[in-house]
Amino acid sequence: MPLTIKDIETAHLRIRQYVHNTSVVTSDLLDELTGCRLFFKCEHLQKAGAFKSRGAVNAVLSLSDVEASKGVATHSSGNHGAALARAARIRNIPAYVVVPGNARQAKKDAMRSYGAELIECESTLTARQEMLTRVVRDTGAAIVHPYDDDRVIAGQGTTALELFDQVVDLDAVIVPVGGGGLLAGCAIVAYPKVHVYGAEPEMADDAHRSFNGGDLITHHVPKTICDGLQTTLGQRNFEIIQHKVTDILLVSEKEIVDAMSLLWTRLKQVVEPSSAVTLAAVIRNRNVFQGQRLGLILTGGNVDLNDLPF
Amino acid sequence: MPLTIKDIETAHLRIRQYVHNTSVVTSDLLDELTGCRLFFKCEHLQKAGAFKSRGAVNAVLSLSDVEASKGVATHSSGNHGAALARAARIRNIPAYVVVPGNARQAKKDAMRSYGAELIECESTLTARQEMLTRVVRDTGAAIVHPYDDDRVIAGQGTTALELFDQVVDLDAVIVPVGGGGLLAGCAIVAYPKVHVYGAEPEMADDAHRSFNGGDLITHHVPKTICDGLQTTLGQRNFEIIQHKVTDILLVSEKEIVDAMSLLWTRLKQVVEPSSAVTLAAVIRNRNVFQGQRLGLILTGGNVDLNDLPF
Repeated sequence: MPLTIKDIETAHLRIRQYVHNTSVVTSDLLDELTGCRLFFKCEHLQKAGAFKSRGAVNAVLSLSDVEASKGVATHSSGNHGAALARAARIRNIPAYVVVPGNARQAKKDAMRSYGAELIECESTLTARQEMLTRVVRDTGAAIVHPYDDDRVIAGQGTTALELFDQVVDLDAVIVPVGGGGLLAGCAIVAYPKVHVYGAEPEMADDAHRSFNGGDLITHHVPKTICDGLQTTLGQRNFEIIQHKVTDILLVSEKEIVDAMSLLWTRLKQVVEPSSAVTLAAVIRNRNVFQGQRLGLILTGGNVDLNDLPF
Repeated sequence: MPLTIKDIETAHLRIRQYVHNTSVVTSDLLDELTGCRLFFKCEHLQKAGAFKSRGAVNAVLSLSDVEASKGVATHSSGNHGAALARAARIRNIPAYVVVPGNARQAKKDAMRSYGAELIECESTLTARQEMLTRVVRDTGAAIVHPYDDDRVIAGQGTTALELFDQVVDLDAVIVPVGGGGLLAGCAIVAYPKVHVYGAEPEMADDAHRSFNGGDLITHHVPKTICDGLQTTLGQRNFEIIQHKVTDILLVSEKEIVDAMSLLWTRLKQVVEPSSAVTLAAVIRNRNVFQGQRLGLILTGGNVDLNDLPF
């Protein structure tokens, strides 16, 4: 059964005592710069520093006691891993996270601080999936995929539920796309009343190409400063996005860093590069969005201060 | 007549449509780290990026039409200058700001963006004061001193008025001290119900020494990463602080940078070094504040991303 807004409303009831209803902030200066009215949903202030807490908590709380008894496992470069470890702690079960060797130190530290057991592997998607299979075989843990999972998509969609409750009359919502969990979840909530756009680095443009070509591209090695978007679109996510998303907008690495700099200096918010793709997309497509009321999701704020792009 | 809480309440009525009632944020992680319950008042999200907007707006709106007719003038390394320029714009009058040559570029840019006319001079307090005298002679502008001014002190004190309205049962409020405008204003509001502490860099310890020695030290060349605190305590400010402040706590440059790093990575807030002295003081004096409910003022968020201490 395809996911509907009912599933997302159910997820919201299930998770809301364990996650923040994050605030929405605005900036006159950024409105002036873009010619739009921008509403930033602060998921970088979410528990564990990213929207990923929503999907992870929903998935973990959806498990039966038997399913949960051996813990949960996933592969993640950071935010999903930390969110899953935190969610597992709520049920007092172990969390195993397969991480690529090149994951950022700050994110590995965060995962450990929430009690995750980390298993390092090569950074290809194939290596990560193989290692995860092995971990599950050895531990009996239940897999919670970072995005290609209905429970996760439903959890991430609660971000849009809250946003529409906080801001009326939005013309569009713009969402970073990596694996597509947040984008798919938000699209289910918004469609067909409000346009939903994905924003994606040119250097990780598989979602853009899948969306426009009509076939899911799975063989792709993204290479972008946005470590949270270094993955390819999931199958479930693709099916939803194909039908419910208006367009996927590309942005360059330089546009991402410039937008990130604006978010830091104007909004005074510490967000990670992945969070900056949406503002970058609005600036690049200023003519398309002129005068509109736009919701932008600031997806995460887990950065390494010793490795900033400024 | 000495300033009283009535003056601060009057200032609040005067300025509140022109400044933000900034939010208060908390962090479980920082509470755990310090053993206190910390409430951060977000003046880095204030108009023009600092609490300075409060005093500047109050001073500018307090001027008679005749006094205001030739504009306003001040000396400032940044935040007060930007705040004064913005306040002057509300009354549609010019603002002249004497800036030390070593002021940060980001702050000079901000002042210009609000329409200030900048006059550069040497960075000593004497050179700044002499240049200001000349500017006033040439233009007829009214001086709005950055801190040694009752209208400014009353304006800054509105920060504490709001904080006490937002958070009940605070044991103490901790405030960065440079010239002492914010500290004096907050002390007037808090005294004698709630303890007020100043927090000051060891490398700019004139307020600490004046407070403990009983005589105002005016000859001192502070040298700290906290560019907002590179000044000496004002006369009016000293008199208030002597009677109404509990103590002035010193912190090292390293403690400031470590605390700033925590504010960036845990609170996810872009604050300038001056804003970090309060958290640094709490961490250093953990045993004094154990278990207390503390209000900390995050004073400003104007940083140059190309010149970070990490």
